Amino acid sequence: MKQNRLEKVLNDMKEKNIPQLIVTDPSSIFYLTGKWIHPGERMLVLYINLDGNHKLFINELFPVYEDLGVEKVWFKDTDDSVELLAKYIHKDHVIGIDKNWPSKFLLKLIQLNAAKSYVNGSDIIDKIRMKKDEEEREFMRRASKINDEAIERLINIIPEGLTEKEMGQRLLKIYEELGAEGFSFETIIAYGANAADPHHEGDNSKVKEGDCVIIDIGCKYKSYCSDMTRTVFYKNLPEKSEEIYNIVLEANKRAINTVKPGVRFCDIDKAARDYIESKGYGKYFTHRTGHSIGIDVHDLGDVSSINTDIVEPGMIFSIEPGIYLPGEVGVRIEDLVLVTEDNCEVLNSFTKDVLRIE
Amino acid sequence: MKQNRLEKVLNDMKEKNIPQLIVTDPSSIFYLTGKWIHPGERMLVLYINLDGNHKLFINELFPVYEDLGVEKVWFKDTDDSVELLAKYIHKDHVIGIDKNWPSKFLLKLIQLNAAKSYVNGSDIIDKIRMKKDEEEREFMRRASKINDEAIERLINIIPEGLTEKEMGQRLLKIYEELGAEGFSFETIIAYGANAADPHHEGDNSKVKEGDCVIIDIGCKYKSYCSDMTRTVFYKNLPEKSEEIYNIVLEANKRAINTVKPGVRFCDIDKAARDYIESKGYGKYFTHRTGHSIGIDVHDLGDVSSINTDIVEPGMIFSIEPGIYLPGEVGVRIEDLVLVTEDNCEVLNSFTKDVLRIE
Repeated sequence: MKQNRLEKVLNDMKEKNIPQLIVTDPSSIFYLTGKWIHPGERMLVLYINLDGNHKLFINELFPVYEDLGVEKVWFKDTDDSVELLAKYIHKDHVIGIDKNWPSKFLLKLIQLNAAKSYVNGSDIIDKIRMKKDEEEREFMRRASKINDEAIERLINIIPEGLTEKEMGQRLLKIYEELGAEGFSFETIIAYGANAADPHHEGDNSKVKEGDCVIIDIGCKYKSYCSDMTRTVFYKNLPEKSEEIYNIVLEANKRAINTVKPGVRFCDIDKAARDYIESKGYGKYFTHRTGHSIGIDVHDLGDVSSINTDIVEPGMIFSIEPGIYLPGEVGVRIEDLVLVTEDNCEVLNSFTKDVLRIE
Repeated sequence: MKQNRLEKVLNDMKEKNIPQLIVTDPSSIFYLTGKWIHPGERMLVLYINLDGNHKLFINELFPVYEDLGVEKVWFKDTDDSVELLAKYIHKDHVIGIDKNWPSKFLLKLIQLNAAKSYVNGSDIIDKIRMKKDEEEREFMRRASKINDEAIERLINIIPEGLTEKEMGQRLLKIYEELGAEGFSFETIIAYGANAADPHHEGDNSKVKEGDCVIIDIGCKYKSYCSDMTRTVFYKNLPEKSEEIYNIVLEANKRAINTVKPGVRFCDIDKAARDYIESKGYGKYFTHRTGHSIGIDVHDLGDVSSINTDIVEPGMIFSIEPGIYLPGEVGVRIEDLVLVTEDNCEVLNSFTKDVLRIE
């Protein structure tokens, strides 16, 4: 196990009076052990106890040969994995549960009276994961550099007239050429009115003159994610689209200018949201301003109006305001920022000037 | 909502004394409403109550315009979705919880004292989903027909010398040409010793003379999955590989011959396992014999030594024995079978004769 990370976890467990913790998120297990294990629907549990008696419960179908610095407890498909786990849990203590652990396991554990009580314990590791160490920052800078290069190449091929889906396939090749490990999330390429749905799934639409083109893409590098969005225009730039573009761009810049240690996430959201509202488009900015990112494309920590948590150095999150006019046009401009001691480092450098693609 | 399916669910809820049910699995929501909604980390709940007061709780970020025959309760990212849900739940009644609902939601619901007690309620819908109706059978026959055709094309291009990963990319194109909706699971193409890991992830390996080639592939058609495996050999067929191939093939056939209404899943597993054990390779057959399949590639219902459930007409599952000699060779042969009134219909027809590819 990565001892410095484990130490932080144990300290926070002590502080929060959670003497034992069930970690099941493959990303958090990777964070602590350096090893990816993808157990599908099978149980995978890293059990951490303040008494130092940590165990990794793992199905024999997923052989891990390395010494991960934690004792492995193997089980088969024919074993009752939760019963096995329950034997190691302290009955008289609270236990922290991973936020995404499927309920079938938790319900069984509760039925077995395995612990005194059950609380959501994910905040402990998730909050530690928010603050990236030097190695993680380097990986994320590199992932975003690749993304900058990839978006430039992708924008250049818009005139080829590929469908949204085909653009996504092309992007996978571009990422491979650039040394990325693949997508960090499902690519969003949306032409024209499709772009007005912030979660549009790429289809067989082709670009038309006057269309906005939202390109929201991300790759992984050394298991760390990038995520950026640019919106460009094909041949024509309608007046309304230009107006919206400039509002979103200004909101993006205002939010970025707000980022520094000590501000709250909601303050950053407010900087973008207030500006868009002042221009009369408040109700068309339908999502949060951003999200934390790291090993997962959505790490803990939204840049939203209800997150009053304080921003600290080493955190990395997206700034991605948008305006969506249903049936008409959508614009979103997204960068990743790394919080520094004074303000922030923007990890994306591809231009945000309005682009008309011929 | 699809009334005949909903009726079955309500009947089973009554029988099992579960008067209210939380359905969150997008596949089950699709099964009941005909609509796919992918809410990512946001809450999505289809709440079913014996009193008929069903509701769909859904985040505004995932607009659903159609009338799904169930009242929608919308919420925003800034709302507390679990609190909202709790208001509709009967405090004095048991509630069935979806097996894969992330624990963060369940822990919050428990903390709010929303119901009398909480049980895993997924079996209700999952068991109904196991028995496919006529429409579903047709979709699954078609998905497997496409798979038969795809595997033939893929085997034919082995001599091109593509890497495992490139073969996967080629397969996606083949599926598109054949009218499939994409993969039903991550393709496994494994050359030589890689094939000895049943969960090998495709890498940049290239095929070598004498290699076995495991091709385990599946597509979706009208949201229903296919899944099949063939193992072929490149240029040479080493004696040992041929011996193993013939054992696995016989195990596959024996298991298929066992399938009929009234037998238990474990009896089918036993037919394959006993034969492989009798040949001295028992410890190299490291997984269950098969799994149910439908909207999900892994539906409820394993063909395993511990599943004593009874097989019924309309069920569809895989028969996929394998033998894996670490560092050396792996062989798996997999078909889907549909249980009929008398025995079963095999949904895959691509040859199982041993193939040497030149």
